[in-house]
Amino acid sequence: MNVASSMLLSPNDPALRSWVESANDASGDFPLQNLPLGVVEDGPAVRIGERVLCLRDALDADLFVKKLASNDEFLMALDVGWLNGIAELDPLAQSMMRENIAAMLVHGSPVRTKVERLLRDANDCEPTAPFVVGDYTDFYASLSHATNVGSMFRPTNPLLPNWKHVPIGYHGRASSIVASGAPIRRPKGQTVASDDGPPTFGPSKLMDYELEVGFFVGRANELGDTIPVADAWNRIFGFVLVNDWSARDIQKWEYQPLGPFLAKNFATTVSPWVVLRQALEPFRVPGPPRSAEDPQVLSYLADPLGTNVDITLEVLIASRDMRDKGTAPTLVSRGSFRDMFWTPAQMLAHHASNGCNMEVGDLLASGTVSGPTKESRGCLLERTWRGTEPITLGDGTERKFLADGDEVIMRGFCEREGHPRIGFGECRGVIMPASA
Amino acid sequence: MNVASSMLLSPNDPALRSWVESANDASGDFPLQNLPLGVVEDGPAVRIGERVLCLRDALDADLFVKKLASNDEFLMALDVGWLNGIAELDPLAQSMMRENIAAMLVHGSPVRTKVERLLRDANDCEPTAPFVVGDYTDFYASLSHATNVGSMFRPTNPLLPNWKHVPIGYHGRASSIVASGAPIRRPKGQTVASDDGPPTFGPSKLMDYELEVGFFVGRANELGDTIPVADAWNRIFGFVLVNDWSARDIQKWEYQPLGPFLAKNFATTVSPWVVLRQALEPFRVPGPPRSAEDPQVLSYLADPLGTNVDITLEVLIASRDMRDKGTAPTLVSRGSFRDMFWTPAQMLAHHASNGCNMEVGDLLASGTVSGPTKESRGCLLERTWRGTEPITLGDGTERKFLADGDEVIMRGFCEREGHPRIGFGECRGVIMPASA
Repeated sequence: MNVASSMLLSPNDPALRSWVESANDASGDFPLQNLPLGVVEDGPAVRIGERVLCLRDALDADLFVKKLASNDEFLMALDVGWLNGIAELDPLAQSMMRENIAAMLVHGSPVRTKVERLLRDANDCEPTAPFVVGDYTDFYASLSHATNVGSMFRPTNPLLPNWKHVPIGYHGRASSIVASGAPIRRPKGQTVASDDGPPTFGPSKLMDYELEVGFFVGRANELGDTIPVADAWNRIFGFVLVNDWSARDIQKWEYQPLGPFLAKNFATTVSPWVVLRQALEPFRVPGPPRSAEDPQVLSYLADPLGTNVDITLEVLIASRDMRDKGTAPTLVSRGSFRDMFWTPAQMLAHHASNGCNMEVGDLLASGTVSGPTKESRGCLLERTWRGTEPITLGDGTERKFLADGDEVIMRGFCEREGHPRIGFGECRGVIMPASA
Repeated sequence: MNVASSMLLSPNDPALRSWVESANDASGDFPLQNLPLGVVEDGPAVRIGERVLCLRDALDADLFVKKLASNDEFLMALDVGWLNGIAELDPLAQSMMRENIAAMLVHGSPVRTKVERLLRDANDCEPTAPFVVGDYTDFYASLSHATNVGSMFRPTNPLLPNWKHVPIGYHGRASSIVASGAPIRRPKGQTVASDDGPPTFGPSKLMDYELEVGFFVGRANELGDTIPVADAWNRIFGFVLVNDWSARDIQKWEYQPLGPFLAKNFATTVSPWVVLRQALEPFRVPGPPRSAEDPQVLSYLADPLGTNVDITLEVLIASRDMRDKGTAPTLVSRGSFRDMFWTPAQMLAHHASNGCNMEVGDLLASGTVSGPTKESRGCLLERTWRGTEPITLGDGTERKFLADGDEVIMRGFCEREGHPRIGFGECRGVIMPASA
């Protein structure tokens, strides 16, 4: 085996192990089969176990094969503080990069010594939001979430007639997408005591999170062109966890007739490590079967590949007091992305079905991921049923909605027999008091 | 008068005239007092009468004062295909640029000969969309529009309780903003024959325009900070005409509960010449007085400056047949931006009131500008009252909604006694048949 060919290795074989010991921890998120990409101080980087390799460092140490090291677009992509350039590389170059990184990190790699001295401790890195997001779209793809929320606002008619026909979505705010760890300032806004007002202006009293899964677009379509649903999965670059922070009192007053606006656009947090679709292939599942009463899906939305992903999702909350005392955060919910009624391919195909141009780095999020059980409800509005069933945290205090100082921690991971766990790490944010 | 000081001149004096003859035409849009900025093939440019001056050409001919010509940010701003860099210059540099350009173009300018050979014919230029738009937000600020549309969908309750308290807005799609002249492909989508479905997928049958005024943000606020309403006007870079193309049948089926999505995001056309707020100062007016029954405006929205602008707005339509035969386009409506219930300063202050970060180049649009009379209704949905009162074009054909081949032309201009007319030029688009 010559050195050049030994520098490319598909990481997909579940039996492979890394010489980075923490990557082989069965309860870890980042084995050799994952290799998610993020952005640290010195640019694009890959996560392996509890370590981080900056791709620019690897280039400078001559660890990339010539085809990459001489690719101008690849070189430029490594010199910026986001992943857009990497996502714009042609698919062959992207595969080669992934295989090249796997070859550096696999057990027995001939370049181990060179790589080892480049690795950084993940705890010393502060990854930023991974993409410059041109447009951000939020969907509403969970049947349980739409039904729960609908039944609170329209008890006799919880699910609107369009819901099972159309993957309902709306445009969100791209500028306020922040990386995990960024503090979240409680917003002020108009809220009302009774349905018809009059409103007062002040800090939101009903702060909530929404547990979502997001994905970044990896291949663009021109304005006027569409994306066939069968091609949609391959246009996804990778997935992250998304916290769609929501001020429920502001939302209630403002959202008719044009949808949520200031109730949502003050901040959206994303997890920093983008798990590539290639790493999630072993966990892909079809959407849930439609019942006999459900309408047939229109052909432009018939997802032949089954592009839901079996991601277990958890939300935990730690109050300031709990963090100060070292009390473990309280698990508030656990659900799965596999339950979503509309799949990622359906969301993307629908979005472009009118000719809307999707660009590399655009973020599409699923909407709140809620399952059929109480424990799998992905926001406090549902979890506490509008505050009527408060939850109790580890410090004995109750929550209907979030208090100042609360930290919300989202986790996601894929597990199955015979395959290393593929995880997303964490998506965190602490609520700060409203400005004076 | 030395040459350096003669190179700066405030263009605000209404008595000033340009040596460019077409700039002094009383019915023209672009006198010396206007000097709108746009982007042509060779970068940022200014419009004067029927001529265009590329700013890079002026720099190369040594026509900018030293303070600008030695300002690295200014130099960089001229080398790109959008106005973001210019809008990011400090306000002093921006004023200096405007005054420097005025001094080049004023009657009697000592540099006339040098400038004259740089001027291009406006008909030979194809300006692009002027800004890279990070986020695009569309408001709903016309009382007549909200009342008209509301009365079609909710006859007993046309105006929702929040409307006079909240400047209702929603996020639009930034990627599909196109320059005047770009063809508009009729979108496909889900539409229904009856209210509850089932839907079919196909070309929209109810294509509409919406006449709007938009403005670009010229000064950013950090995430978590707000924009005081008294400061909002000065953060506006300039104004354009906006056509918020709308597929009414897609909108009707998809928009509940999260607002318009695919019915709007297939294309939004903007006029190419950004009229700076400085040029519109003489036409600024307060918003319409609130009636005794109207709620008092909350203090964070009390606009002390009165930032509506008295812009006369027109919509014209020319069918393909009319254009082929040289028939003049048919005037369909005429209204004024001065009638808007919510002012630009109120929209911007509201948008940032929850700490949402506005970025330079963000586009905020007003929503359909409709006045109290039938002739001032700014979209066909209202103008033909849902198709029940068709309009007749110059070729004798009727329109309820737009037909393939129709060109929609929007015009806007400000007029008052003793001041040259300040205009926006045109915002045009032709409807192309849906893709096969």
